[in-house]
Amino acid sequence: MSDGEAAPTTLSAEELDALHAHWRAANYLAVGQIYLMRNPLLREPLRPEHIKPRLLGHWGTSPGLNLVHTHLNRVIRARDLNALCVWGPGHGGPAVLANSWLEGSYSEVYPGVPRDGSGMERLFRQFSFPGGVPSHVAPETPGSIHEGGELGYSLAHAHGAALDNPDLVVACVIGDGEAETGPLAGSWHANKFLDPVHDGAVLPVLHLNGYKIANPTVLSRLPREELDELLRGYGHDPLHVSGDDPAEVHRAMAAAMDRALDRIAAVQSAAREHGVTGRPRWPVIVLRTPKGWTGPAEVDGQPVEGTWRAHQVPLSGVRENPRHLAQLEAWLRSYRPEELFDDLGRPRPRVLECVPEGKRRLGATPHANGGLLTRDLPIAPLERFAVPVEKPGAGRHEPTQVLGELLEQVMADTAARRDFRLVGPDETASNRLQAVYGATGKAWQERTLGTDEHLDRHGRVMEILSEHLCQGWLEGYLLTGRHGLFSCYEAFVHIVDSMVNQHIKWLKTSRALPWRAPVPSLTYLLTSHVWRQDHNGFSHQDPGFVDHVLNKSPDVVRVYLPPDANTLLSVADHVLRSRDHVNVVVAGKQPTFDWLSLDQARAHCARGAGIWDWAGTQDEAGDPDAVLACAGDVPTQEVLAAVSLLRAELPDLAVRVVNVVDLARLMPHEEHPHGMTDAEYDALFTPDKPVVFAYHGYPWLIHRLAYRRTGHGNLHVRGYKETGTTTTPFDMVVRNDLDRYRLVMDVIDRVPGLAVKAAVVRQRMEDARTRHHAYIREHGTDMPEVADWAWTD
Amino acid sequence: MSDGEAAPTTLSAEELDALHAHWRAANYLAVGQIYLMRNPLLREPLRPEHIKPRLLGHWGTSPGLNLVHTHLNRVIRARDLNALCVWGPGHGGPAVLANSWLEGSYSEVYPGVPRDGSGMERLFRQFSFPGGVPSHVAPETPGSIHEGGELGYSLAHAHGAALDNPDLVVACVIGDGEAETGPLAGSWHANKFLDPVHDGAVLPVLHLNGYKIANPTVLSRLPREELDELLRGYGHDPLHVSGDDPAEVHRAMAAAMDRALDRIAAVQSAAREHGVTGRPRWPVIVLRTPKGWTGPAEVDGQPVEGTWRAHQVPLSGVRENPRHLAQLEAWLRSYRPEELFDDLGRPRPRVLECVPEGKRRLGATPHANGGLLTRDLPIAPLERFAVPVEKPGAGRHEPTQVLGELLEQVMADTAARRDFRLVGPDETASNRLQAVYGATGKAWQERTLGTDEHLDRHGRVMEILSEHLCQGWLEGYLLTGRHGLFSCYEAFVHIVDSMVNQHIKWLKTSRALPWRAPVPSLTYLLTSHVWRQDHNGFSHQDPGFVDHVLNKSPDVVRVYLPPDANTLLSVADHVLRSRDHVNVVVAGKQPTFDWLSLDQARAHCARGAGIWDWAGTQDEAGDPDAVLACAGDVPTQEVLAAVSLLRAELPDLAVRVVNVVDLARLMPHEEHPHGMTDAEYDALFTPDKPVVFAYHGYPWLIHRLAYRRTGHGNLHVRGYKETGTTTTPFDMVVRNDLDRYRLVMDVIDRVPGLAVKAAVVRQRMEDARTRHHAYIREHGTDMPEVADWAWTD
Repeated sequence: MSDGEAAPTTLSAEELDALHAHWRAANYLAVGQIYLMRNPLLREPLRPEHIKPRLLGHWGTSPGLNLVHTHLNRVIRARDLNALCVWGPGHGGPAVLANSWLEGSYSEVYPGVPRDGSGMERLFRQFSFPGGVPSHVAPETPGSIHEGGELGYSLAHAHGAALDNPDLVVACVIGDGEAETGPLAGSWHANKFLDPVHDGAVLPVLHLNGYKIANPTVLSRLPREELDELLRGYGHDPLHVSGDDPAEVHRAMAAAMDRALDRIAAVQSAAREHGVTGRPRWPVIVLRTPKGWTGPAEVDGQPVEGTWRAHQVPLSGVRENPRHLAQLEAWLRSYRPEELFDDLGRPRPRVLECVPEGKRRLGATPHANGGLLTRDLPIAPLERFAVPVEKPGAGRHEPTQVLGELLEQVMADTAARRDFRLVGPDETASNRLQAVYGATGKAWQERTLGTDEHLDRHGRVMEILSEHLCQGWLEGYLLTGRHGLFSCYEAFVHIVDSMVNQHIKWLKTSRALPWRAPVPSLTYLLTSHVWRQDHNGFSHQDPGFVDHVLNKSPDVVRVYLPPDANTLLSVADHVLRSRDHVNVVVAGKQPTFDWLSLDQARAHCARGAGIWDWAGTQDEAGDPDAVLACAGDVPTQEVLAAVSLLRAELPDLAVRVVNVVDLARLMPHEEHPHGMTDAEYDALFTPDKPVVFAYHGYPWLIHRLAYRRTGHGNLHVRGYKETGTTTTPFDMVVRNDLDRYRLVMDVIDRVPGLAVKAAVVRQRMEDARTRHHAYIREHGTDMPEVADWAWTD
Repeated sequence: MSDGEAAPTTLSAEELDALHAHWRAANYLAVGQIYLMRNPLLREPLRPEHIKPRLLGHWGTSPGLNLVHTHLNRVIRARDLNALCVWGPGHGGPAVLANSWLEGSYSEVYPGVPRDGSGMERLFRQFSFPGGVPSHVAPETPGSIHEGGELGYSLAHAHGAALDNPDLVVACVIGDGEAETGPLAGSWHANKFLDPVHDGAVLPVLHLNGYKIANPTVLSRLPREELDELLRGYGHDPLHVSGDDPAEVHRAMAAAMDRALDRIAAVQSAAREHGVTGRPRWPVIVLRTPKGWTGPAEVDGQPVEGTWRAHQVPLSGVRENPRHLAQLEAWLRSYRPEELFDDLGRPRPRVLECVPEGKRRLGATPHANGGLLTRDLPIAPLERFAVPVEKPGAGRHEPTQVLGELLEQVMADTAARRDFRLVGPDETASNRLQAVYGATGKAWQERTLGTDEHLDRHGRVMEILSEHLCQGWLEGYLLTGRHGLFSCYEAFVHIVDSMVNQHIKWLKTSRALPWRAPVPSLTYLLTSHVWRQDHNGFSHQDPGFVDHVLNKSPDVVRVYLPPDANTLLSVADHVLRSRDHVNVVVAGKQPTFDWLSLDQARAHCARGAGIWDWAGTQDEAGDPDAVLACAGDVPTQEVLAAVSLLRAELPDLAVRVVNVVDLARLMPHEEHPHGMTDAEYDALFTPDKPVVFAYHGYPWLIHRLAYRRTGHGNLHVRGYKETGTTTTPFDMVVRNDLDRYRLVMDVIDRVPGLAVKAAVVRQRMEDARTRHHAYIREHGTDMPEVADWAWTD
């Protein structure tokens, strides 16, 4: 199987004719979408006014996508297959839309675009047209979980969709352009984590049409033998389909699909029924057809079909250039539309012979509208995991370790349902979530050795040293309706900045589509954060992911900075139940003071931000002299330490402590659904008192959120300012002026009319910073007075 | 060559002994750095007070790195090789530091750490110690161009360093953890772009020590045959070195190095002397040795050597646990330090036998301090490329196309020097820089076909559909002292967010090291930007990279938004000459009004922001009623269109136009070297008049930059607010409230005491927006009055 061309096929002439009719129809509809706004069935000669004024869209990949769709249709029908397809070259939107319209799923979702001549005209006109539909496969496209604009993630999405869907076959078309990206190249190894017992199958179709925008592709120019070595090295067995003669390619494609699916069935049967545990070699189809196949061979004397010139719109001057217009008409008529569509513009029966029924249709599978399949996640009562807090700051726990116990229970409670996964780049234990291994192991299909721990063929923790693959797995898993969590070093989540952009855009668009059911949220647990990179240093210090996501749609984005273990539990409980959000939770893994009991934590998280009366020195009735605000675990600790100092040194000063868990609370309520009204904001922060805000990340983010507030002129923010190295925890806060001593100085500098004593106190703070500096240079550790500091109220 | 183990070696017993001594010494020094702060030579029994209070560092990878370094030393000496090494597992800092100290390069750069016992104590103590050196390979490390903290980029950096360095051999150690990342997996195909004539060689050493933090690695558990297929599929011929017996491994490693270098020499000779043009198969060494080799086999009854437990600090309780202390002492003494170092702590001659001399030492090669080799880039007078501007707005040009002509000349003028490269993900022509093909082609070593254009075995344009590889190539090229430019779709540069973080951190740290010579800046040309994604739509709309980089060190980061062709030329001239910066230039590729002549552009760019008197309606003497500010090409066009409307409709209103090219000018001058003083800011924006600011990107960025300014309360910013789809250019600005009509309304809403007529004008603007909406829905194009708008003063 691994060496040769697919064997001669058994397609009958009838079957071949029907497949070819379907493919021609899809190609016709793809061309029509790019060019036509009237006369969709060519009932009259083509005239300039039938042509769209702006010609936009990607033709080059479309005939290949249509071919794959046609042949997926065939095998879905023939095998009653439960299939989903991820269209990597999703810029070939015309192809996927054409197929959805042909199979009827499009008109079911969009009754305004019926499967007849009027609908065809709508289908054509709306494509890449203002007020219409995007030119790529997008949330608006039935059957899709994948936007193919930013390339690189199709195979990871496909694998994510296949996890815990044992009956599903996920076909994944990978363009040879996309195949050059790092994330795609790294995703091939996802097959080392695919469990043939509990997971479905992924069938990659590597489509070598030879060119990207302006260049040949790397993989298409490899010698065949070298490409096969590469694919076998990836753990796949290649099946080749090549050619430019449609009938031959149809036969070869049908045969390759059958062989691939037979192989998949055999692998699954061996694992499920015969207990075979070796890692299988899964098939891959290598489809080599011309770019822009069946389009114009030449335009203005330049070769187009089979070259990079076919990438977008092969004939660009159709409205102005009669030769182009004539060429377009000949091109469209080459598909013989009159044979494909009846008088009313409906696809003729022959065209639809290969099309599956009902939910088996690729545009109608509920897996591509995963919220339809979502079940609420069972989350045990938090009381079982909460840490006891008799009074604030009396104890310490590692927040993520406490969360790990909750996650263990979630894993245990979903053991049979298998709809929860934890992903992370080799950091689950490093991030102190290792309790989950009490309930499940780490997915692993390769060899194991005696010294390995927690590796499990059927495990639901996914670890590979690729943030891209972790993200792609989880996106695919969530969009098909399941639940999950991504735990990541805070600095390195930037690796997937661009992927989360696309996911947020997907969710934003989906939320506006009534037919798309809400899906479980994508939740990041960012830990091993900027303040505790004691040994990794500067390269591992970056709190900017929060800034990144807060540029995106407020309907989608949520950011939480729980300051202790119980607040983390409460936040986790909330985010794991949420839908259609991207939640960013930043929490430490180091021992952290327990400030709030579970009930207090719940109340605090429900408010999102609040005054910690017990921490402040403010008189119950009166206004404070200053507000010390904090967001994040380390800033909270430093603020409370600063309050301790102030209470001892300047007992008459009234300081209010405000803690912010839900960062979007700071935004105007017109701009974010969690935003406070000005009255709420003023009630916490005062309209006129100095506010010293200790923030976990880049300080200017707080200004960007709060700049419209009345008291903004009095807001002074401390945070990370890109200053750091390999050093002690307290030295990090000193270097960034977030330490307790600096916060005390900040308050003293801002409260008017303080007693003379304040100057003395201020100097003492300066001295403490100097002493710290000398101490750590000498001893390599923080001064005992800061390292062992404990809160006492 | 591709199949077998390396052949039996010819190392003499003497040579073997010397290599082994060097390796033992390096291992000893690596362990010493992790553990010791006193008693470096073990002249007295080890006691707790000799041990550092915080044990930080990565031991697991260190013996492997030491082995590679020892054997690179041997071949450098034996062949007088010009070599550089990229240490992918750069968290193994102790190893690279140990080798630099042994070869003397460390003490030359840091005379305070001499190559004797006192220096050894400093070397040990400073490692991962406050005020000392980071635990990873970092800018502080002599011989390095690569921080190994965030994994994935070693092979791309190595290739970038090799480009246009025909005599250089760049060894590249790739950890099997890093090998799982997408960027690394994609980088293997860099060999399809390496010119054996003009470029040097890259020798990857894939180090399979079997484990990452807590897991086995994917590649180490592949069957040998499958791994070989993978590597051959990548275009490499594998040479295997495996074992845990040092002598055997030394012999095998020496033989493999010799075979690899012989092969490289043969490839280069064939291409250079015999005109062979086929793509060569380059060697790769697969080194399989135990993680934490020579360290403790077991600790507390758990296996450590050869497992993931050896990743960081194998013995964690040395100060408190006498058993651990004894085990550490035995471990250190197992290297027989007394044989390795003399009474004064200096390495004995036998240890140094393999060490090369002078600049051949890996810690002393000028290629790793590339600024030493940098020559100023020849940039022809801009007059040759500038577009004529007799009066503002009379003509239009495509700014990036104009820039392309300048770049063509740079390419031509560096044809012999070969120290300028243009990189981009298959977008050079799409971004309208195709003029460069007049001077050079696209690097390509694979097969070519008759329809290909501009492919060139010796070309200096690098195109692959991988932003990661483009970025990595360019970083490697710049850090070795050459020049370049990265042209990228604006939205997708987020793909390398995390890489640019690391590069900025590298530059920030380097700037503080007097011995590091400044290197040419990393410059991004971001085009195909958010406002002109007419057919790609929402997924391609993201202006947030500017926000991302502006969180980073102000010493390094520069952001420019030239509004027309001549300002783009002037900005390009500046950034291409700059050093140690990351420059982000955002410029359109669509026809754009020419506002400024070259001289005006130069003056404007020198100021970075200025009043455009000719555009405003303000009386020369008086204060304006309002300021209309703009940054970016599309916002500038809309602001000038708004001024046109205001001039016609409300001729008595005095409006000042301010254009900002250099975004950091808005920041306080205490925070960014380009920041304006408050007086400068007020002179442009006024302290008290309404300012309507049309900005290219997310509007809150402007607030984040300007929140401290006196007039900030009057600042109203329009920009992209994550609203977009496939639509017309003007519809995009309307959807985001950046259009001329909205800007006029914004002014009217903010200027107090306007005549009654203003309300009528305001309504007319509303009507125009409504009319636009209806028009584009009907016609699919912008209304003629906006599409054909021309500036007339």
